[in-house]
Amino acid sequence: MSTRSLTSKNNPVVKTVRLLATQARRAPAELTLVEGVRSVEEVLRANIEISTVLISDNFGDSERGLRLREVLVQSGLKIYQIPEALFRSLSDVKASQGILALVRIPARKLITDLAADRPLLLCAAGIQDPGNLGTLIRAAAAAGASMVCTLSGTVSVRNPKTVRASAGAVFHIPFIEELAPEGFLEFCRRRSIPVLRSSAHEGNCYFREDLTGPCAILLGNEGSGVDRAAWAAGLRSVHIPMAPGAESLNVAVAGAILMFEALRQRTSRPS
Amino acid sequence: MSTRSLTSKNNPVVKTVRLLATQARRAPAELTLVEGVRSVEEVLRANIEISTVLISDNFGDSERGLRLREVLVQSGLKIYQIPEALFRSLSDVKASQGILALVRIPARKLITDLAADRPLLLCAAGIQDPGNLGTLIRAAAAAGASMVCTLSGTVSVRNPKTVRASAGAVFHIPFIEELAPEGFLEFCRRRSIPVLRSSAHEGNCYFREDLTGPCAILLGNEGSGVDRAAWAAGLRSVHIPMAPGAESLNVAVAGAILMFEALRQRTSRPS
Repeated sequence: MSTRSLTSKNNPVVKTVRLLATQARRAPAELTLVEGVRSVEEVLRANIEISTVLISDNFGDSERGLRLREVLVQSGLKIYQIPEALFRSLSDVKASQGILALVRIPARKLITDLAADRPLLLCAAGIQDPGNLGTLIRAAAAAGASMVCTLSGTVSVRNPKTVRASAGAVFHIPFIEELAPEGFLEFCRRRSIPVLRSSAHEGNCYFREDLTGPCAILLGNEGSGVDRAAWAAGLRSVHIPMAPGAESLNVAVAGAILMFEALRQRTSRPS
Repeated sequence: MSTRSLTSKNNPVVKTVRLLATQARRAPAELTLVEGVRSVEEVLRANIEISTVLISDNFGDSERGLRLREVLVQSGLKIYQIPEALFRSLSDVKASQGILALVRIPARKLITDLAADRPLLLCAAGIQDPGNLGTLIRAAAAAGASMVCTLSGTVSVRNPKTVRASAGAVFHIPFIEELAPEGFLEFCRRRSIPVLRSSAHEGNCYFREDLTGPCAILLGNEGSGVDRAAWAAGLRSVHIPMAPGAESLNVAVAGAILMFEALRQRTSRPS
């Protein structure tokens, strides 16, 4: 299928992109907006289904970009070429590379997708900033986490800013969204996966905790942490000791430190 | 001194704020723009000199904000009240809290400011994203680092976005900017501080490296790392092992993992 020109801002494809870009309620839940050469390459590498590709008039500055377009054309994908100004109005990036794709990241079921021997789960409970969630997912994938769960009230994994900050990791790590706290806890209980709540000051020091076994790390909202009163009062907690006078860590940094401590322990003391 | 009204966008104070907000070349190097209630509170807590405060017409939604204004008024500071629309045009934040301050973060000299017994230095060599640098500085302060250095070609520590991502840490940790690589290396050599280059794959595994002694951790550009060919060829390097298939870590996350491993080792094995 060849490249088609598309110039109207009222075209249905353009409207769909805009809904996804602004994370409007009416945006189709099954589609995720992906921007940039590297991200689209990651989509292909992960065998994620691409629905539509939009390319700006000015696309093709780099050899890598041209190679990518060649691959997309040869795959028989629908490619729309749109005017630079229209493209910019859809793009969320300052220095846009002129390529957007609508992709279908498959939905996972919490029950069936956990194949790991010693599962390491990451659960985001109320994180608001898509950059933080994306960075956390990137770190989870790098630390070998089995799955990412988010509870209701957490920014979407499919938010274009989350996708970008994850540097492609959302295409590779299984995730499930919008869980109820009880559903998540029940899932862990059934599989004897201890849940560890990351706390600013409470609980055990993280590196004195045995993280070599199955484990789910729970990270809360940037400002208020996990809502303990509501549902997390009985959970075991760990904290990351800091230097005197220090106040707090960025939630993505805290999560990464915990997950890489688990990887360190698993590497140093294999079961 | 009472609050004065200020309505013209051509007022010199407004012009100065705009230069700082856009990180223009002509922006006064001695001033840093700080935005938000919490950040201005941190400035006061750190005894940083405040030059000017700008408050929007709509300021004062929160009790915490009103308390802060009271403290600022009592300190005899120059406070300008400006129309909401003008304030928004200066603000870099979506949900602005209606308060900006121009502050003077004192310049440090690399030679004289290193009092720590077992110094832990963080050196940023080419980081471009202010969010990454700020997050890194926040993690460095939390891990008890003695100082942050940046080499030429790194985004400014005083960039408003860096300041914000640091969550106030830039007001507490000593830093020095725009060093030449040779100057930084010479400084470390003279004090027998080993420099460790953070690498994606090369060198020793980070947790097998002894980080209990004096140590400078060097982090490079988000895409290309430290420019080895130019000046860092002879440096010792460490890497963070990742799960199979994982590509890379965010630079702030990598730096945080390294610094907290140093803190972990120092806590577990005090000298």
